[in-house]
Amino acid sequence: MASTARVLIAASELDSDLFYATRFLAPDPFTYVEIRGRKTLLLNELEVDRARREAAVDEVLCTTDLLRKGQKGSLVPLVNFLRRHQARVVEVPSTFPIAHARHLERRGVRVRCKPSALFFEERMTKTADEIEAIRETQRATEAAVADALDLLHRARIVDGRIEHEGQTVTCEMLRTRMDLFLHERGYLAANTIVASGADGCDPHCRGTGPVRPHQSLVIDIFPRSLRTRYYSDMTRTVVKGHPSPELKRLYQTVLDGQRMGLGAVRAGADGAKIHRAILDYFTHKGYKTGLKDGRMQGFFHGTGHGLGLDIHEPPRLSRLGQQLAENNVVTVEPGLYYPAIGAVRIEDTVVVRGGDSENLTSFHKILEIE
Amino acid sequence: MASTARVLIAASELDSDLFYATRFLAPDPFTYVEIRGRKTLLLNELEVDRARREAAVDEVLCTTDLLRKGQKGSLVPLVNFLRRHQARVVEVPSTFPIAHARHLERRGVRVRCKPSALFFEERMTKTADEIEAIRETQRATEAAVADALDLLHRARIVDGRIEHEGQTVTCEMLRTRMDLFLHERGYLAANTIVASGADGCDPHCRGTGPVRPHQSLVIDIFPRSLRTRYYSDMTRTVVKGHPSPELKRLYQTVLDGQRMGLGAVRAGADGAKIHRAILDYFTHKGYKTGLKDGRMQGFFHGTGHGLGLDIHEPPRLSRLGQQLAENNVVTVEPGLYYPAIGAVRIEDTVVVRGGDSENLTSFHKILEIE
Repeated sequence: MASTARVLIAASELDSDLFYATRFLAPDPFTYVEIRGRKTLLLNELEVDRARREAAVDEVLCTTDLLRKGQKGSLVPLVNFLRRHQARVVEVPSTFPIAHARHLERRGVRVRCKPSALFFEERMTKTADEIEAIRETQRATEAAVADALDLLHRARIVDGRIEHEGQTVTCEMLRTRMDLFLHERGYLAANTIVASGADGCDPHCRGTGPVRPHQSLVIDIFPRSLRTRYYSDMTRTVVKGHPSPELKRLYQTVLDGQRMGLGAVRAGADGAKIHRAILDYFTHKGYKTGLKDGRMQGFFHGTGHGLGLDIHEPPRLSRLGQQLAENNVVTVEPGLYYPAIGAVRIEDTVVVRGGDSENLTSFHKILEIE
Repeated sequence: MASTARVLIAASELDSDLFYATRFLAPDPFTYVEIRGRKTLLLNELEVDRARREAAVDEVLCTTDLLRKGQKGSLVPLVNFLRRHQARVVEVPSTFPIAHARHLERRGVRVRCKPSALFFEERMTKTADEIEAIRETQRATEAAVADALDLLHRARIVDGRIEHEGQTVTCEMLRTRMDLFLHERGYLAANTIVASGADGCDPHCRGTGPVRPHQSLVIDIFPRSLRTRYYSDMTRTVVKGHPSPELKRLYQTVLDGQRMGLGAVRAGADGAKIHRAILDYFTHKGYKTGLKDGRMQGFFHGTGHGLGLDIHEPPRLSRLGQQLAENNVVTVEPGLYYPAIGAVRIEDTVVVRGGDSENLTSFHKILEIE
């Protein structure tokens, strides 16, 4: 009987669908084939023994053994394997490389592309183990941020600079401190944001230079566990010194918006509606979103995103949001950005439950650092 | 006049072709279009201002501005942009996502896939700045390995264990020490291999547990600079204690094989021939390659690979190797693996020059650590 095969070809270090399906980590592309629930990996000599020990699949084959005399070409083993199993149709993820798809089509294989963002949509629904892994990463994240804020607390404002142990406190210093703190404990943070003043108004600007007293400081950190490979994500906004009344009001508004969002997250809720409600609330409070003086101001990113083996996964809480389901793990992170006032973003990571949500983040939300 | 557009859609943090073309780093996918040499980025509101400051392109457009009233869908801005420029054919990389390709085809765009592994083949030919970036990463790598070997030198063999400051020296300890050493200096090493004894016979096994005295220890480390994003790659094999005569002979054979490889690298040389010559030399010396006792033994990986913004790039020095050209940067890393004797791999990173090569690695090759 002819059957459909699910096929992935990727490096599992970069492709979380493939890691999810195999729990096998490799730096170079390899092939995953699933036929009637049976999972097979096709790997070269270099990886085949390790895969047999480590991969959570039914069978590991060496690509060389799938070549007939005189055959070569990287997709030939897969084509031979599909023929052997009379699989004439393959289902591939939306990210499947076009060159591979066309090669298979030339060999008479029909390539059907799954339209969803995740190949394994069950990735959105986290198991208890996965939630525990995210919680563990989150705990380390909070310890790292606590350590950085403790430094800011001990630092002093001298001549318009923030000084600690004779040095000017910079964004780079705080970022490196947190990243190393995490790395020592087995977590890897990349592109941690520590953005002072107007720099924070560009939500993906990593931040450079001295931390400015009395201005907003956005700290957004999203490490991955080197052991489990699960991420967590947290943002806090603080001010060393005395924030302006305008900045205090901005902070309170974002905090209220986040509380609205956290209160609305539950199974069945619509991510787009949650986002829209916060945006409307901000507008109602006088904080408009749109182009001003040639740049975007206000609340011009999504309210949140799923996370797990990827830092950005479905479901989204945004304009294009989806319905939430039990055991989704999502961030809730509204922000407001006005170069004349400052930047505020506050982000927690929560588990969607039947009637509400469980916050995996227990870190305080206090604007002012003495 | 109708014209062809080169199109990339990817997250530049994961796609080195896109980073190479733009020098703009973003965590989520964005669109690059090149028409008659003019480079345009299409980005959402969140990234557009930062891209205007940071990206090395001619033009940055906001996707929202490319939508006509009532339109939506993530590829519509690109389709509108292509129409505006009368581009009916796009050239995409072999890794281009199939879902995007099919979407464009449904809109009447012809999608031509570039068959090469790199979209910008000029990436293989490194500029002086790129070589300097790799050299800088290599210097940091050598300092990290020197620090780890210094610890091994200071450690003592007690009751069949290697002990340092009262603790048993483990693979994890050495790996973490090197990785943190590098991170503190602005380099990120992932999946560093520190594999003791038979573990090293699986070339991608990262290694765990105590470092065994008198047995081979393979250290393979390939960090990336967080500043430049260029990699380097080095492997050394050492023994704390007294290696067996068989292990010493294995080491000397790999060292001689590597010397052959290093001597053969020059512009015009054939990567497949260099690999073949080393494999033949090993066989001639009595070190056979193939399945034994159900696992691969001997020399069953390639001799080397290009590196730069990716850790594995063309050209390859392997069965499927290519011709080398001036200013390619490649590794030369033969290895021999026999569980009954041990694992040996020795790897340097070199620049291909007209008549020879320049070794960017200056770290000693000494098997025994006292």
